[in-house]
Amino acid sequence: MCPVRLLYVDGPMARATGRHGDESRALPRDLLLDVELRRGRLRKNLRETLRSAIQEGRLLAGTMLPSSRTLAADLGVSRGVVTDVYDQLAAEGYLVMTPRHAPTVGGVANAVRAEPEPTPPAWRFDFVATTPDVGLFPRRAWVRAVERSLRSAPADALGYGDSRGRIELRLAVADYLARVRGVRTGPERIVITQGFRQALDLLCRTLAARGSTTLAFETPSLPDAWATARASGLELVACPVDQDGLRVDRLHRMPAAAVVVTPAHQFPTGAVMAPTRRTALVSWAAGAGRLIVEDDYDAEFRFDRPAVGALQGLDPGRVVHVGTASKTLAPGVRLGWMSLPADLVGEVRASKAAADSGSPAIDQLALADLISTGEYDRQVGRARHLYRRRRDQLVDALSARLPQLPVDGAAAGLHVLLRLPDGVDDDEVAREAGRHGIGVRALSPMLLASGPERGLVLGYGRLRPDSIYKAVAALARIVKPAAG
Amino acid sequence: MCPVRLLYVDGPMARATGRHGDESRALPRDLLLDVELRRGRLRKNLRETLRSAIQEGRLLAGTMLPSSRTLAADLGVSRGVVTDVYDQLAAEGYLVMTPRHAPTVGGVANAVRAEPEPTPPAWRFDFVATTPDVGLFPRRAWVRAVERSLRSAPADALGYGDSRGRIELRLAVADYLARVRGVRTGPERIVITQGFRQALDLLCRTLAARGSTTLAFETPSLPDAWATARASGLELVACPVDQDGLRVDRLHRMPAAAVVVTPAHQFPTGAVMAPTRRTALVSWAAGAGRLIVEDDYDAEFRFDRPAVGALQGLDPGRVVHVGTASKTLAPGVRLGWMSLPADLVGEVRASKAAADSGSPAIDQLALADLISTGEYDRQVGRARHLYRRRRDQLVDALSARLPQLPVDGAAAGLHVLLRLPDGVDDDEVAREAGRHGIGVRALSPMLLASGPERGLVLGYGRLRPDSIYKAVAALARIVKPAAG
Repeated sequence: MCPVRLLYVDGPMARATGRHGDESRALPRDLLLDVELRRGRLRKNLRETLRSAIQEGRLLAGTMLPSSRTLAADLGVSRGVVTDVYDQLAAEGYLVMTPRHAPTVGGVANAVRAEPEPTPPAWRFDFVATTPDVGLFPRRAWVRAVERSLRSAPADALGYGDSRGRIELRLAVADYLARVRGVRTGPERIVITQGFRQALDLLCRTLAARGSTTLAFETPSLPDAWATARASGLELVACPVDQDGLRVDRLHRMPAAAVVVTPAHQFPTGAVMAPTRRTALVSWAAGAGRLIVEDDYDAEFRFDRPAVGALQGLDPGRVVHVGTASKTLAPGVRLGWMSLPADLVGEVRASKAAADSGSPAIDQLALADLISTGEYDRQVGRARHLYRRRRDQLVDALSARLPQLPVDGAAAGLHVLLRLPDGVDDDEVAREAGRHGIGVRALSPMLLASGPERGLVLGYGRLRPDSIYKAVAALARIVKPAAG
Repeated sequence: MCPVRLLYVDGPMARATGRHGDESRALPRDLLLDVELRRGRLRKNLRETLRSAIQEGRLLAGTMLPSSRTLAADLGVSRGVVTDVYDQLAAEGYLVMTPRHAPTVGGVANAVRAEPEPTPPAWRFDFVATTPDVGLFPRRAWVRAVERSLRSAPADALGYGDSRGRIELRLAVADYLARVRGVRTGPERIVITQGFRQALDLLCRTLAARGSTTLAFETPSLPDAWATARASGLELVACPVDQDGLRVDRLHRMPAAAVVVTPAHQFPTGAVMAPTRRTALVSWAAGAGRLIVEDDYDAEFRFDRPAVGALQGLDPGRVVHVGTASKTLAPGVRLGWMSLPADLVGEVRASKAAADSGSPAIDQLALADLISTGEYDRQVGRARHLYRRRRDQLVDALSARLPQLPVDGAAAGLHVLLRLPDGVDDDEVAREAGRHGIGVRALSPMLLASGPERGLVLGYGRLRPDSIYKAVAALARIVKPAAG
């Protein structure tokens, strides 16, 4: 009913000394207990008070507590309350009980605090290319989709299910991919993942388990993906890209049995893979148990013409098509999907089961609802319209402010590549921009094999339209001196 | 506006033959095109018609299509529509274009269908122990939590964030764990995961990367977890348990530097780890860079007394505490959390980033909302009340129907262990039960080191209260003959 403060000055300790004769514990020590007593919560309050005192080192190992009779009398509670609490703390290892003696505090190790939270930088102008405008996320539509899904989903949908994912979403995605990306797939060959990142992780684990040691990546490409591949123990080899996409001729000379490519819109150069390269890449894979991982991360956003259909359509037996809602909705949704060759389904499904048993059910149901009601397409359409305008503004602003620097990349996706002269320290340019509140990433850290190419990867997904000219002006002030 | 069916009998083929002189393509072949023409969708419809025909093998490689002029005239559309579509399909690799010739169909590989969906068995009586009653999932409260969270979350919450998880959830979990489980943690040491499974996966990957080769598990324990550990290349060693939990004395003789334990409620024996074992286990870990993984999967459900506090409280520098919403809410939520020793945070965080960049934001926000509004505690309280009654009924029914067989396990969690005589083929008993519509798992497949113990793991989470007696009666008819 009110807080009780008890002070045992040198009391229980004297007895502890007498029994054990241990010098270090014989020092007189005060025992101060603040106990908040609420009706019906006596045991809980007393237990937590004592446990915290032990955990926080206020009650040291070897300290003898008052007998249950004494403490009960001092607190004005029944003795049973105190013996229950002592028993509980003994069961947890915090107290050591000896018959006919008051309990002694057990040994408890200190906790060490970890690093404090880092505070992410808040950019004045955010050119970071890997995130879309999360402000466009259709929050209301998502809530409605969750509500509708939970109203109609069978209870089993919330249990452990097929590790490939909910059938509702696999059906919706199969239909969507056939319709929008020309992917040849079916629900039985789709595995739902936590975005592209996990799809790559599961594929790399499967490749490693099959005995592969090497995986080819485009250079330049996204370092985050390299880290994921390396986590499975794979070695990476770098295959160059040019304005027609992957240099497939170079791939033939490499020891890799698999390659990760971005045919619809190379990241970060923005190249669209040329028809001859597509045919050549599929021929390469037809070789000997080879595999192509098609990272189709932003193909929904093509502005000047219909998006080039997925490479996977040309050879569904050799190409894994990976898509994601990270660009169309938001990265925080953490949902992606892969369409697998039939002979990989079993292994990848087992790999997904071992990794996390399957993706969250409610999110999957909500996304299936958004796709099948057409809301997903409408959202993509709205976003495409906005991004197209931002891209136009960005390209205009760049040609006005930095006319001497070439801007690469098809009219697609969420970024362009601003080329800097070879050898310029683009990383230092990006850091200098950061110091001026401009978030931007340099090209050179994305080179898997070192090379002379330099540049800045400029995302427009997160730039507010009314600030694009200002953002480019601010950037130009930093880039101009560096670009000579 | 209406479907158009075009039939080119041996037409374009004649020209193809003439140009290439290839015998196999010289066979006269009809070309049948069904095109649905809708205003504003001409290009899309024509593109998809042709692409599907090629993908499905109705248009074979080498087939020459009508010239753009011919096809446009036959369809009654402008020639630009057809050339656009031909260009698009050429860009995708489906058509090969040669100047001044009609396009030829490119080579496309066949898709192979994967295994059809397996249909999970629908049990008449479901004793499967690893899933709670998903019918109790608070659907409305979840929708409200999603709605509230999305109304107030900053846009950045939907971007890529700290791979440890949303700070809102880490704060709520840290507070909850201190309050309910006596865990000593803080948001900076918590990593949010996709359930226990992913927590174990990330820990195993971290251990393997540190050079560990061996991990100790309790025997018996859950085979699914073994699969996860083995996926990281770890070898497993089996440490026996008895009625006081893990035999820590045996652990000392094993080469493992880490052990996975279930101290609050051993799975599947239901033992609660005795105080002396707790102290001994913590002493074992204090040795040399050793680690304890505490799988605290169902500690919220203790029926006869307050749950024994987490082992982690005794030594937060050596024990990883892993909790999950899979038993308290539903497995489909796929959220769990680990409280890490400070010196593991960096590695596990990087491992989580490589695995999937972080858990879904909206689910995390919703769970944080449920915990901080007290709804989570109320849900646990409601479920505890129901499970307690089901357990009582199950134990009563077992003692009435199978009085000769001992029932093991503390009054806690979601299961008991029905012991069968040593050496009985419990797996066959479980299969026979399955044939009678009773879902149940045998003990022996959970023995990591083979031993004579036999039994059935009986979950009551999914048994409807009004059917428990019937379920036990049905089970007894199968068990009795086997148990002699």
